[in-house]
Amino acid sequence: MTELARQIVLASRPHGRPAPENFRLETVPMPVPGAGELLLKVRYLSLDPYMRGRMSEAKSYAAPVPVGGVMEGGTVAEVVESRRPDFAPGDLVLSYSGWRSHALSDGTGLVRLDPAEAPVTTALGVLGMPGFTAYAGLKIIGQPKAGETVVVAAASGPVGSAVGQIARIRGARAVGIAGGARKCALLREAFGFDVAVDHRSPTFAADLKAACPDGVDVYFENVGGAVWDAVWPLLNRFARVPVCGLVAQYNATGPAAGPDRLPQLMRDILTRSLTVRGFIQRDFAAAEMPAFREEMGLWVADGRVRYQEDIVAGLEAAPEALIGLLEGRNFGKLIVAVA
Amino acid sequence: MTELARQIVLASRPHGRPAPENFRLETVPMPVPGAGELLLKVRYLSLDPYMRGRMSEAKSYAAPVPVGGVMEGGTVAEVVESRRPDFAPGDLVLSYSGWRSHALSDGTGLVRLDPAEAPVTTALGVLGMPGFTAYAGLKIIGQPKAGETVVVAAASGPVGSAVGQIARIRGARAVGIAGGARKCALLREAFGFDVAVDHRSPTFAADLKAACPDGVDVYFENVGGAVWDAVWPLLNRFARVPVCGLVAQYNATGPAAGPDRLPQLMRDILTRSLTVRGFIQRDFAAAEMPAFREEMGLWVADGRVRYQEDIVAGLEAAPEALIGLLEGRNFGKLIVAVA
Repeated sequence: MTELARQIVLASRPHGRPAPENFRLETVPMPVPGAGELLLKVRYLSLDPYMRGRMSEAKSYAAPVPVGGVMEGGTVAEVVESRRPDFAPGDLVLSYSGWRSHALSDGTGLVRLDPAEAPVTTALGVLGMPGFTAYAGLKIIGQPKAGETVVVAAASGPVGSAVGQIARIRGARAVGIAGGARKCALLREAFGFDVAVDHRSPTFAADLKAACPDGVDVYFENVGGAVWDAVWPLLNRFARVPVCGLVAQYNATGPAAGPDRLPQLMRDILTRSLTVRGFIQRDFAAAEMPAFREEMGLWVADGRVRYQEDIVAGLEAAPEALIGLLEGRNFGKLIVAVA
Repeated sequence: MTELARQIVLASRPHGRPAPENFRLETVPMPVPGAGELLLKVRYLSLDPYMRGRMSEAKSYAAPVPVGGVMEGGTVAEVVESRRPDFAPGDLVLSYSGWRSHALSDGTGLVRLDPAEAPVTTALGVLGMPGFTAYAGLKIIGQPKAGETVVVAAASGPVGSAVGQIARIRGARAVGIAGGARKCALLREAFGFDVAVDHRSPTFAADLKAACPDGVDVYFENVGGAVWDAVWPLLNRFARVPVCGLVAQYNATGPAAGPDRLPQLMRDILTRSLTVRGFIQRDFAAAEMPAFREEMGLWVADGRVRYQEDIVAGLEAAPEALIGLLEGRNFGKLIVAVA
């Protein structure tokens, strides 16, 4: 009897919205660790909007997943076999093992996790990549000052909720945008946003304007699309726009209809002295990760920063869960409990 | 016999390209300085692209000139009458007197000029607002590093020529864009650009690409339009785009035809970690003016930074000269010798 491992590969590239048939669940022989290697059993898989980008061939900041290749992703895993002196069975690690039940590792890039310090799933959310995205994007680019207005969309997600809470810690006013009454209630009640605005409302643009009587000083851009259209006219002189995602555009299949608004954007960047700056969180890791671990660790421990997780069960649930994430169907940080 | 002064007012707002009838030359009684005032005789009037913005009603970073109001502008003037202890007849000053032959001043904002230190017209160009725009935009936003490629358009103008020369002092490669063979020769021969590219050539985009084999790290944006379109695909990861002008768009009369390229721009800002930041030079004056005066003063004095002036004679020549400036017909810093 051979033990088997499972993995999900990119079966084909999506055109627009990904569909279940773009993914394929495969059963493969259990990997066997060689000298200096570990066998990891994946416990939790993080699902994040950037994964849509990896499914496409379009040039981006990272190479696409090849068709037939295992989908990439951050994971929390348990060491089940070790041929290394520095790891023992039972150790929990943050790894980038992808969408699979088991993986080999030579130890490179693994971060040991201590479940006594914080629930290990937080390494995929508030204390991991999404939390760091919020922290570094605000610190380096957004630079909110006391009394300023910070707006963020997808505000019930792991990046947005951290942006709002950090903005408030910095003394700014936090305006969160989310889809639907339940998410908006979450923003106010769990995350302490000053105002929550529902982007599904037919009066969304007017609601947002009313929520920002002094304009917008920082817009943390992670969605684009109609939310950007509503925020844009509200941007104050010297406003900063850290751009870390554009999830509303990820499923676009061709050029957008005119008129061409690029000249108007450049004009506003000029006349309002705007800063629009894209970033990938890992480019800030060397400079900011130690400060993030210390500050965010304290804030999470003392409850000043709260988080919400949406955990789905089973590796086979990952494709539908990612499709739903791209449409805003998750509530909080989306995680697959693999094992 | 009453002495008369002359001034040019905004007769009407232009629709698109300004025309001579948008301006009106008026003769008015000679102003008489009151207690604490000076009478200035304007010697030189600076013409700059921003003036097109002041002729429009559209919201910008500065209030428009009212219809019937005197056109604004920086000037070099001579004190001809003084009722202040701190200025004497014969003193030369940098003032913001506008398009007129004579003006009153209470001394506010005047900067004394020493013709022994540098030709006084440089206070309107390389050692004045345009030079400072280049200096501060590069220092604060562009941040060129040794070996990087810096691209600037309108490169024979006072901002562009300073950008290229400062970039080279910082160890970067300077690629200048200008219209026509004569300006391109000026870029290479007078200003020392590594490459000059003619934007009137039918192969402009390909020529620019060939001139930037390692891509573009800093694009100093002062024109927009077709030049932006050619630079955009060449921007490297982490490229910086200081935006200080969009002269190619200033005469636009309506929305541009589609497709809408805004989503693509935001996507590139994200995936290439671009920084696009608008600025008005005066916002950097408090922090950077002393360093500018010292560094740029030295560079101009020792010939490391050269400049070119295009001087037209007579206040009445100002409207045609500004219209020409907006179409790139000037060669170097455009100045009206008023008196």
